[in-house]
Amino acid sequence: MIFASRCVVVLVCLALAFLSPAQADEGMWPMSEIHRLDLNAKGLRIPVTTIYNPNQVSLVDGIVQIGGCTGSLVSADGLILTNHHCAFGAIQDASTPERNYLENGFLARDRADEVQAKGYTVRITESYSDVSQRVLSAVTPGMEAGTRAKAIEKRIKEIVLDTEAKYPGKRAEVAEMFVGKAYTLFIYTYLKDVRLVFAPPRAIGEFGGEDDNWVWPRHTGDFSFFRAYVGPNGAPADHSASNVPYHPRKYLQVAPQGVSEGDFIFIFGYPGRTFRHNAASYLDYEYRVRMPMVVAWYGWQIEQMENVSKSDATAALKVAPRIKSLSNTFKNYRGKLVGIRRTEMLKKKRDDESRLAAFIQASADRKEKYGRVLEDLARVYQKAEETSEREFLIQQLTRGADALRVAHTVYDAARERQKPDVERESAYMERNWKQTTDRLLLSLKNFHPGLDKTILKQLLVRAAQLPDGQKISALASLGVEASAIEQNLARVYGTTRVSDETFVRDLLSKSPDQIAQLDDPFIRLAVSFYPDSQALKEAEKNRSGELNKLYGLYLDAKRDFLGADFVPDANSTLRLTFGSIKGYRPADAIVATPITTLSGVVEKHTGQEPFDAPKELLELAGRKDFGRFAHPGLKDVPVAILYDADTTGGNSGSPVLNANGQLVGVNFDRAWEATINDYGWSPLYSRSIAVDVRYVLWVTLKLGRAAHLLKEMGVAE
Amino acid sequence: MIFASRCVVVLVCLALAFLSPAQADEGMWPMSEIHRLDLNAKGLRIPVTTIYNPNQVSLVDGIVQIGGCTGSLVSADGLILTNHHCAFGAIQDASTPERNYLENGFLARDRADEVQAKGYTVRITESYSDVSQRVLSAVTPGMEAGTRAKAIEKRIKEIVLDTEAKYPGKRAEVAEMFVGKAYTLFIYTYLKDVRLVFAPPRAIGEFGGEDDNWVWPRHTGDFSFFRAYVGPNGAPADHSASNVPYHPRKYLQVAPQGVSEGDFIFIFGYPGRTFRHNAASYLDYEYRVRMPMVVAWYGWQIEQMENVSKSDATAALKVAPRIKSLSNTFKNYRGKLVGIRRTEMLKKKRDDESRLAAFIQASADRKEKYGRVLEDLARVYQKAEETSEREFLIQQLTRGADALRVAHTVYDAARERQKPDVERESAYMERNWKQTTDRLLLSLKNFHPGLDKTILKQLLVRAAQLPDGQKISALASLGVEASAIEQNLARVYGTTRVSDETFVRDLLSKSPDQIAQLDDPFIRLAVSFYPDSQALKEAEKNRSGELNKLYGLYLDAKRDFLGADFVPDANSTLRLTFGSIKGYRPADAIVATPITTLSGVVEKHTGQEPFDAPKELLELAGRKDFGRFAHPGLKDVPVAILYDADTTGGNSGSPVLNANGQLVGVNFDRAWEATINDYGWSPLYSRSIAVDVRYVLWVTLKLGRAAHLLKEMGVAE
Repeated sequence: MIFASRCVVVLVCLALAFLSPAQADEGMWPMSEIHRLDLNAKGLRIPVTTIYNPNQVSLVDGIVQIGGCTGSLVSADGLILTNHHCAFGAIQDASTPERNYLENGFLARDRADEVQAKGYTVRITESYSDVSQRVLSAVTPGMEAGTRAKAIEKRIKEIVLDTEAKYPGKRAEVAEMFVGKAYTLFIYTYLKDVRLVFAPPRAIGEFGGEDDNWVWPRHTGDFSFFRAYVGPNGAPADHSASNVPYHPRKYLQVAPQGVSEGDFIFIFGYPGRTFRHNAASYLDYEYRVRMPMVVAWYGWQIEQMENVSKSDATAALKVAPRIKSLSNTFKNYRGKLVGIRRTEMLKKKRDDESRLAAFIQASADRKEKYGRVLEDLARVYQKAEETSEREFLIQQLTRGADALRVAHTVYDAARERQKPDVERESAYMERNWKQTTDRLLLSLKNFHPGLDKTILKQLLVRAAQLPDGQKISALASLGVEASAIEQNLARVYGTTRVSDETFVRDLLSKSPDQIAQLDDPFIRLAVSFYPDSQALKEAEKNRSGELNKLYGLYLDAKRDFLGADFVPDANSTLRLTFGSIKGYRPADAIVATPITTLSGVVEKHTGQEPFDAPKELLELAGRKDFGRFAHPGLKDVPVAILYDADTTGGNSGSPVLNANGQLVGVNFDRAWEATINDYGWSPLYSRSIAVDVRYVLWVTLKLGRAAHLLKEMGVAE
Repeated sequence: MIFASRCVVVLVCLALAFLSPAQADEGMWPMSEIHRLDLNAKGLRIPVTTIYNPNQVSLVDGIVQIGGCTGSLVSADGLILTNHHCAFGAIQDASTPERNYLENGFLARDRADEVQAKGYTVRITESYSDVSQRVLSAVTPGMEAGTRAKAIEKRIKEIVLDTEAKYPGKRAEVAEMFVGKAYTLFIYTYLKDVRLVFAPPRAIGEFGGEDDNWVWPRHTGDFSFFRAYVGPNGAPADHSASNVPYHPRKYLQVAPQGVSEGDFIFIFGYPGRTFRHNAASYLDYEYRVRMPMVVAWYGWQIEQMENVSKSDATAALKVAPRIKSLSNTFKNYRGKLVGIRRTEMLKKKRDDESRLAAFIQASADRKEKYGRVLEDLARVYQKAEETSEREFLIQQLTRGADALRVAHTVYDAARERQKPDVERESAYMERNWKQTTDRLLLSLKNFHPGLDKTILKQLLVRAAQLPDGQKISALASLGVEASAIEQNLARVYGTTRVSDETFVRDLLSKSPDQIAQLDDPFIRLAVSFYPDSQALKEAEKNRSGELNKLYGLYLDAKRDFLGADFVPDANSTLRLTFGSIKGYRPADAIVATPITTLSGVVEKHTGQEPFDAPKELLELAGRKDFGRFAHPGLKDVPVAILYDADTTGGNSGSPVLNANGQLVGVNFDRAWEATINDYGWSPLYSRSIAVDVRYVLWVTLKLGRAAHLLKEMGVAE
């Protein structure tokens, strides 16, 4: 399944947006560009202006962001359809041992029954505008790379704070649409009273679990319903009994007849990050260095966690979410490596770039203008490779090992919060501070000292093997040989208090000096390690600034070369992509067809998790009780659909719409090879997966017995 | 991949042959029955008499049995084409660390280069005749079941010895064609000088290894060439430099143009055992009791062996063949369980049997005649179930745990060899004694005391938990609690000599009394355990006799009911099956097409075993150097083909022939779900796999550079 990689502020990511020439099915198009697509020629049967119209109500107004995912408003009373995996936290939170909604599913019989989805917000895009000039007026031509990056980052924060001051209750964000070139200011409304309405049991919503994750054919009923509420005055309000359902400007029509193979579809959503048109040297670095490093490390961590889980049921519960999250990335990255190899993506990218290089060399003017941009980019990644192990270890020391992560975060926060708000790291700005501390405290619940020690030890052993000149001096106190490290760690884990919530809460109000005086071994380690971690952050910013400038140039050269229009890479802003219901050939002598069925659920059912379908589902399937939701050709209820639209992480929960703009599915995953979508789109392999609306409706009606929800959506039984 | 289950004498197996009505594609037909098939109407383009003609030379004369597999004579000079996995032992045996033919492949540049395949024989069927009367005259109507089984067994041995005396140099076998009804005497010639001619490197011959075993799509080049030699006088002779190539009466033409989807094909071979028309109560017992027991036990053993292998490279080499063999059955049985469930085979069998029961009940005459045959059969399996754990443990104690197996075998041999030859267990008869002792001594090489102790301990712990009345008294001396067993085993493994070849060789010439007086702990255990193992053997013979009688009756009832002709179940005798090149749907939304390609090899290649294709193959594929062996539609060299003919274990190496009777492939495996072929044939799932002749020829020519072999087979380059 796909989780959005949340970038709180655009520049914090090392993500480097670039442009793509228009192609048949490739591209996550900003709404402002879709008029160039001629979607009607491609199969759309409604005017493009009914999809997107900045001056009037259009389909995009029916799309929201919820829980890091995309959601669709599907009724006049604020009913929202999204993925089960996006609702997971809310369902878990509402569950008790007596009322286990994860296991049994949840249905609110009426509005009073709907339970609060704590921590969930619904984000609605109110407007957006070009602020490129305002952002870029902060930089001067001769600026050094690091200074330039910081200047842009600071200006963006100023714009955000300025806008939020002007529109109380709204949130502002500035997205970098074209690296170092174009910036857009988005203004959002956040609805804060979100309630859970219906969720299938996890035996449906997670059917296939990790085994089927990133896999087609798929049989997961990955959907849930929420409802957004506002104050009696219609304005966003905290959860309250007096709140009323939100009445959206627009909601999507559900199409119970669904789609068939070959049908045109399009998708709205908030795709996270793609790196389609980065340099070949970038992909080479990713493929050869970074991804294998992540795969090896995640695989090793998963193994440790599974070992701990085997012998300790309590630990198993604690580490389960981490295993799930690591496994998701682990499988995704392995898929990427396979996909890149299979599509020969690196070779193609290099060939493209050779042509660009020849084009530059062919004119004195261009040689003067673009100079050695390709070599300079390659040099940046070459330099990154030289210190990649060191950087990886420093990152993991403050992220992967809990005790040190907590100590580092409280000290980092204390240091940052001494600065003026606008100069702080985004997470420590006032507008984000509550969320940051909530997350930190919540993370203490899953602390497991034995496992944490194993992970930290491995990182320290690797750090001790760094070449001279790259050693991390602060770690020397914990030993160099594995046995000494083991002994020292046994001691420090025995005495530290960084997993104690009261202790950590107290630290959050202390000054850096106060913290530095504390006699806790992990606090002391974090303080002495701080210069190293800050130096890395500084180096990253310098690199980002350098890349920022180089990619600006690279972009110009490429535009010159192609003489074509561009679409920016995805960056968590609203996009449209389109394609058709289409199978693919995952392997020699294998054809995957694009619609799975209820019979497939029965076929996969083993009675053992994750293939343990509810008894009632099996009975309904056994007597072919399909209602009106069978596909006429397949004579069976479609469960999931496959299509060649262009999606990535963040598209979870995105509505899949038919040629008439009606909802026919809820996007939730990609086929394994399509994990390469982050780097490139392949007509042969780029396939995304939605739960079919017929399965959504069939499960809601036949197993949930929630005829009232179908009625609310205007669907006859 | 498939290995034949070798039944030295038919009645030793609990296998229960039965009959099948003629269907479109089902059936492994005895050659004497194929005239009833109208193969020409089904697609055959040559007269059936050219396939089989007892009075003249026909295609069947081009078929041999070799190394437990089927092989095809493919030249006038005795060249034989079979599977790489059938040649494995010969290739391994011919290899040295300096000349590793398994890794690098083997090619004899000329006849003088061909190396002896030690232990290999080529069996040619000379003739066969009905001996039912002669066998059944040994039984009398009132005979008790066990006595009846023993009488039949003894009479068969008499016929065999008698025939072999009459035809010196030939081997005789009697096959039970219809349980308790019909017996056929086969006379075979064995050629004893067999030489290895060509084998691809295992990176081709085993490409995909255990991962791809029982899997379609498949990319294994599972073929090798042998040559049979005879004395200068044309008669079978031991290996000698003066021997000359065998000139067969008939050899098969190779068809380099291969086949396409939909083409008619047929297959000759020696399929091992099927149980198609056993009672529903038999399948129920297998599905519910025996197969899950085997799956659990094999899975556990594999885990232990893999654990041992991880930390000990020498042990890893020793246990590798056992892991391979266990894994093969393990995966096969899991496939069977899936296939039986997916085809609802048990339900269908029960429904069929209900109709048979109703037919019997509908007439007083039939009620009188067939009585309670269905209930009686069910009762036999019910009784077997009650003692299944005990029987399984006793079998495994003398087969799965090496030390006890060796001790038991030498004592058992000494006891049996005191009897007259014809009354002995087949393995201890003079005609088989050398093979039996060779195998026993060879098996000592792979003895691993640590692993053996783990396995024996597990068996003893389980035996200690048997219900009262079923306990195995001889084992009590080794303890009841796991800790006591552990201690006792540490002691006995420390002192036993049963893994010492000299010691064992010496034992083979001792009398039972001499053996019983020895002071070796495993010998003592084997002697005291002997009555239990003999009692089980006796019980099995009684059960076999009882089933023998009941199935005779069941067969009559079924023939009465269906009013149709019958084809016997497979029993390692020569059979023909037919079908067409055909894909299938292995799962919801997945279509498997029936021809894989060289591109698929490249696609699967990871550089890591078992997907580590030779560099030269990748280069040839990269420059599309296909020679004349590309499929015109696929524009690629076909590697493997899939078809719905009816095969089972023992069909390894069987030729796949086109409508003109020319060789187009070498059968070597089945798709996973087709492991159910032992119990039933499914038009949806029963698919077998061959290496495509075009891949055989392409590899032989392009990688082996053995143009002379193509020439010998009459194939232009």
